Amino acid sequence: MSGESDHLCVVLVGTGNPLNIGAAARAMSNFGFLRLRLVNPYEVAFREARSAVGASAVLASAEEFKTVAEAVADCTHVVGTTAVRHRELHHQLRRLEYGARLIRKELACGRVALLFGTEKTGLSNDDLSHCHWLMTIPTREQHISMNLGQAVAVCLYELVRDRKIKTIKVTKTKSARASEVERISKVLLEALHLSGYVNPKSLTSTQERVRRMVRRLNLSSDDAELWLGIYRQMLWKMKDRKSDS
Amino acid sequence: MSGESDHLCVVLVGTGNPLNIGAAARAMSNFGFLRLRLVNPYEVAFREARSAVGASAVLASAEEFKTVAEAVADCTHVVGTTAVRHRELHHQLRRLEYGARLIRKELACGRVALLFGTEKTGLSNDDLSHCHWLMTIPTREQHISMNLGQAVAVCLYELVRDRKIKTIKVTKTKSARASEVERISKVLLEALHLSGYVNPKSLTSTQERVRRMVRRLNLSSDDAELWLGIYRQMLWKMKDRKSDS
Repeated sequence: MSGESDHLCVVLVGTGNPLNIGAAARAMSNFGFLRLRLVNPYEVAFREARSAVGASAVLASAEEFKTVAEAVADCTHVVGTTAVRHRELHHQLRRLEYGARLIRKELACGRVALLFGTEKTGLSNDDLSHCHWLMTIPTREQHISMNLGQAVAVCLYELVRDRKIKTIKVTKTKSARASEVERISKVLLEALHLSGYVNPKSLTSTQERVRRMVRRLNLSSDDAELWLGIYRQMLWKMKDRKSDS
Repeated sequence: MSGESDHLCVVLVGTGNPLNIGAAARAMSNFGFLRLRLVNPYEVAFREARSAVGASAVLASAEEFKTVAEAVADCTHVVGTTAVRHRELHHQLRRLEYGARLIRKELACGRVALLFGTEKTGLSNDDLSHCHWLMTIPTREQHISMNLGQAVAVCLYELVRDRKIKTIKVTKTKSARASEVERISKVLLEALHLSGYVNPKSLTSTQERVRRMVRRLNLSSDDAELWLGIYRQMLWKMKDRKSDS
């Protein structure tokens, strides 16, 4: 866990279903955020939630609080999530793409709490009053309400997205050289000739067409070798036939 | 649903838990992708999955198939998702951020299938052989495996996120449909078999390899027809020889 990931607290407020807590923990672990906090006035048996596949450590170290105020007390910045866009919001509402950018900046200098509300009604006005601003996932107007575990996954993905560009292992495919492509064209043309596909009258135009077709394949060097082998084998088979007759 | 969203098919291959199918449907509905396809050799009772809150229409219109080939037959582009990064992959692997950009481009000109594998083992090598390339969500190395519904949500979010930025350059060439590509693979395999290129012992792996090779060609619809004609002619010639002997 990098320092910045360690600065984010995912705070689930009033979550009723332990499976959703487990699912949130799994997404947190997937994206490298391991600090889970729960605000619940009553006890929820979440520590063994089956849905936390691979993330039991997150559940084990989760902290429980009675109020939002206590849960965010040590945070320098508090962000609420909401699906609602049209109710009278007293907060600035930012789309996830832009909000996540701000959160990243905040994480560089302090601890940030990211709040998710209950499955049915989201964050209450009282919960919202603890937030600096609100963030929303750009869902479809006709169906704005997301599953809690999925919402957590999407928000955390946005926070790590495009981060590790340097660690991408780009599969560097080496393109085939012109000479390799030309060899394929030649073998293919001979095979077409033998199979009666080429009308001798239009030989030149067919040659050009086949060459263009083979070039359009944009073969890698490895694939060029494979295709050459395939065409040679087929050519050999057809020649074999010719010597019979 | 915009034209482009309508062009995406989410294909769940071998999903065992109906609740995961419902969760995927909910995320689809949240982000405006309504075409769900299921590949399952056996019946799964998913139509009433409780987890599809607000997305019963997606489940109701979901299409069922026995094989991946049938499920992607009308698609011009097939993308597989995988958490695995280090196993020997025969496909190009792209991070979601970049893969989604390519998918958006493809959606402008044809139908794209996005495949998700089983909860336990993901997509099989045979499933993967139907894919043009693979996409991975940038999860933490120590915990790469995501919950299916969460993975679907994150992928679809990336497809709709920050739409204003979209830099779609429409390619004018019409891509070949998966069914056309599959026809080529079949004729080619038969030709390879006849020519003695295929060792019967390694038939399955050769089938998968050939299928991947043909997919990597990224044929246009016009070229697909030309190549099919060429291979048929060569096949006919080789069969001709066979009847002589």
